[in-house]
Amino acid sequence: MAAPNPQTIKDAVHAQRGMIEALFAQLRQDGLDEPGVTRDPYGPGEQRAHATVARAAEALGLEIGGDAAANLYMTLPGRDRAAPVLVIGSHLDSVPHGGNFDGAAGVLAGLAAVGALRRMGVTPDCDIVVMGIRAEESVWFQVSYIGSRSSLGTLPDGALEVRRVDTGRTLADHIAECGGDPQALRARARHFDPSRIRAYLELHIEQAPSLVEEGKPVAIGTGIPGNFRVTAGRIEGAPDHVGTPRRFRRDAAMAGAEFAMALDSLWAEHEERGVPMACTLGRFHTDPAEHGLTIVPGSFYFSLDVRAYDEAVLTELEERVGRIIQGIEQRRGVRFHLGQMARAAVGKVDPAIRAGLEEAAAAQGIDVLRLGSPASHDAAAFAAAGAPMGMLFVRNENGSHNPFEAMEIGDFLDGATTLTQWIATELTETTK
Amino acid sequence: MAAPNPQTIKDAVHAQRGMIEALFAQLRQDGLDEPGVTRDPYGPGEQRAHATVARAAEALGLEIGGDAAANLYMTLPGRDRAAPVLVIGSHLDSVPHGGNFDGAAGVLAGLAAVGALRRMGVTPDCDIVVMGIRAEESVWFQVSYIGSRSSLGTLPDGALEVRRVDTGRTLADHIAECGGDPQALRARARHFDPSRIRAYLELHIEQAPSLVEEGKPVAIGTGIPGNFRVTAGRIEGAPDHVGTPRRFRRDAAMAGAEFAMALDSLWAEHEERGVPMACTLGRFHTDPAEHGLTIVPGSFYFSLDVRAYDEAVLTELEERVGRIIQGIEQRRGVRFHLGQMARAAVGKVDPAIRAGLEEAAAAQGIDVLRLGSPASHDAAAFAAAGAPMGMLFVRNENGSHNPFEAMEIGDFLDGATTLTQWIATELTETTK
Repeated sequence: MAAPNPQTIKDAVHAQRGMIEALFAQLRQDGLDEPGVTRDPYGPGEQRAHATVARAAEALGLEIGGDAAANLYMTLPGRDRAAPVLVIGSHLDSVPHGGNFDGAAGVLAGLAAVGALRRMGVTPDCDIVVMGIRAEESVWFQVSYIGSRSSLGTLPDGALEVRRVDTGRTLADHIAECGGDPQALRARARHFDPSRIRAYLELHIEQAPSLVEEGKPVAIGTGIPGNFRVTAGRIEGAPDHVGTPRRFRRDAAMAGAEFAMALDSLWAEHEERGVPMACTLGRFHTDPAEHGLTIVPGSFYFSLDVRAYDEAVLTELEERVGRIIQGIEQRRGVRFHLGQMARAAVGKVDPAIRAGLEEAAAAQGIDVLRLGSPASHDAAAFAAAGAPMGMLFVRNENGSHNPFEAMEIGDFLDGATTLTQWIATELTETTK
Repeated sequence: MAAPNPQTIKDAVHAQRGMIEALFAQLRQDGLDEPGVTRDPYGPGEQRAHATVARAAEALGLEIGGDAAANLYMTLPGRDRAAPVLVIGSHLDSVPHGGNFDGAAGVLAGLAAVGALRRMGVTPDCDIVVMGIRAEESVWFQVSYIGSRSSLGTLPDGALEVRRVDTGRTLADHIAECGGDPQALRARARHFDPSRIRAYLELHIEQAPSLVEEGKPVAIGTGIPGNFRVTAGRIEGAPDHVGTPRRFRRDAAMAGAEFAMALDSLWAEHEERGVPMACTLGRFHTDPAEHGLTIVPGSFYFSLDVRAYDEAVLTELEERVGRIIQGIEQRRGVRFHLGQMARAAVGKVDPAIRAGLEEAAAAQGIDVLRLGSPASHDAAAFAAAGAPMGMLFVRNENGSHNPFEAMEIGDFLDGATTLTQWIATELTETTK
C-alpha cells in the first residue's frame, strides 16, 4: 500500500479534532484544582487522566496494556507484529496547579495519529504504541523520568524508596496502589528492549515562547538537555542580631543571594557565547522557624537545576558551580551542603528522524523551527537507553507548569499532522 | 552625705552577685524553650519574667508599680520625691529561642545598682526607678519599642491593632490580658513626662563582638541607630518552567537575590567610607506553596531592616534603596511591593551623661570602649521623647537573639559598678 497523499493525511488528522477537543476538556475536568489542573503522579489526578485516555483508546479499537510501573500502552497493530515498534509517548501527570497541555498533548497527538491512520485504512508496517507515561514531573518525587525509565529498566537504585514530597509515602507504595508491581521493578523488569524500538517520538508544547516570537506553529527538536540537580541544598551560616556589623556576619541568606547572582552571571556569559544552558533555583528560602525582622538568617535552603545540551558543557558547569561555592564559603564564613546530587544525561535526537520530521512538515507546507528543547522530556530516557528518538514542539503561550498554558488546537493539529505524515512516509515504505 | 569611695562602691555591687546569679538562673528556668529561652511579650514567657523580677525587687524593699502598658516599675525612693527621676530600664521579653541576657541584663543591672546603694546606706537625691519594659523585640508585633513608647505616650497610631505574628491576636488584647489598659493607651495616657526624667540609663549586652575583639568588658554608648523597615515585602514576577530561557524569565527569586547583593554592596561602600549602617533581610524566601525543583519562582518575599546613626544617612539610604528597586524592576520585569514602611528615629546619647559614664568607669579603673550601638534599644524611645539618655554595653560572645549568648558575670558586674559609680557621683552631689 502506498502512503496516502498529504491532503488526505491532513484531512484525516483534522477529522480527529472533535475527539481531541473532547479529550482535552475531559482531562481538564478530571484534573481541575483551581487555579489550573493537578494530575498528581500515582495519585487520583493522574489515575483519572489514565482512565480517560484509556477509554478513548478503546473507542478507537486499540489494544490496551500496562506494565510494572502502571504505564499505559495503547497499541495499533502493525502488519508485522514482531517488528520493532514505533512508540509515540508523553506523560499524563502535571505539576501542582499546572496547565492542561504539558504532557497530555503528546499522548493525544499519538491518538490523533492512530485515529487518522484508522480513518485512512492504513495498516502500518509495525505496531504503533501510544504510551501514557507515568510520573514525569520531578517536582513530586524529585526523580526524573520515573515512568519511562521503569519501562526501559533504567530506573536508578533507590528511586522506589524516594517519598512523594506532599504525601510522604514512597514511590513503591504509590506504584503498588495504582496497580503496578514495585517488586518486579526492583528485579529490573522492563517493558521495552530498546533494540526492539524502531523510533520513539514525542510531541510536547513548547515551554518557552520561541515559536510565539517566530510566528511558527511547530518546531522539530534538535536535542534534550541533560542536567545536574541539587534537590535539598543548605547553606549553614550563623544566626545573628540585626545590629551585627557586616564584617562579623555569616549571613546564610546573603550567601544564597551571592550564589544565585553568580549562577545568573555564569548563564549570561554562556548566553553571550551562544551556548544554551539554564539555571533554576526553584526553592530559595530562609527557614520560617528562624524568621525575624531583626534576625540575621543562620541557614538558607535551595534547590538547583542546571541544564545544557552537551555533556562537556555540563561537566564544566558543575566544576564552575563548585568553584563559586568555594569562593562564597571563604568570603562569607558559611558552609554549603549539597546532599546527594542527581544527574540526567543529554538526550540526543536521531539525525534521520529529525530530517524525516522536517521533510514531513515540508510535505504538509507547515513552516517549522529547529529547536533545542529547553526542558527535559521522557524522550531523553529513551535516547539514553539507545532508542532512536525524535521530538516535535507545538507553539504555546505563557510558558508551562502554570495554569496559563495556551496552545491553539490548530497548532496542535499541525503537529499531529506532521507526525502522521512521518508515519505514513516511514512506516508504509515496505509496500510503496 | 558624700559619695562613697570607688572601692566601697565596687564591693557593694559585687555583694549583689549572688542575687544576680540566682535571678539569671530563675529567668532562664522561667523562659526555657530549647534551644534557648522564649519570653514572649504579653504572653506567658514575659509574664513569668516580670513576676520573678518583681519578687526580687520586693525583697530589696523597692516600691512596685505598673502602668497602662503593664510595664514594671521598681522604685528606690530618693530624698526629694518630687525631683525628676533616674530611670534604669531595659526589656524583659526575648526573641523566640533567644538568649538569657538580651534585655534582662539591663533590668538586673538596675537591681544590682539599687541593691548596692541600699547596702551602702545611700539615699539618692531623687527616686531611682528600675523599669522592666514590655515588648521590645519587634519580631513579635513588628512594632518598635512598644513598652517604652507606651510609658511616654508616643506609641504610634494603629499599633494597638497590630497582631502578634504567632498568636494572630491584637496588641490591645495581649495588653489587656496582662493587666494593662489599652483604652487608656488609646487616650494617650502616659506614665512619664519626659521633662520629669533626670536621665534614662540602659545597660545591654553587646550584640556584636567589638568588645570581645578589643578585650574590654564594657563600652559606653555614643548613639543608637534609627531605621526604616519593610515588614512584608513582596516581589511579583512570573512563574515559569525550568526550561524557559533567561531572556524570557521574570524570576522573582533572582530579583530578590539581586536586591540583596545591591544592598550588600551599598553597605560595603558605606563601610569603606567609615559610615556605620546595617542592612538585614531577616525573611528572604520563595513561596512554599509554589515550590518546585522545576518551577521558576513567580513570587518572592522579604523583610528589610536598614539602620544608621544619622538621619541624613538614613534619608540617603532610603533613596538609594528606591533606585536599586527601580533598576531591578526594569531589568527583570518584576514589581516590588513594599507595603507600609516603619521608621524609627536615631537615638542621641546625652553628651554629659556619656562623659559622666566614662569618668565613672575611669574612677573604677574599668577600661571601656566607645561604641555606637549596632542595635535599637528602648533608650532611643526615651531620647526621642526628650529625656537625657545614656547607654552601657557589656561584652558578650556569639551575638544575641540566639541561644548562644555568653556574658560573663564579671563583665556584668563591671557594667553595674560603672552605673552605680555614676549614680553615686551624680545623685549624691547635693550634699557633697
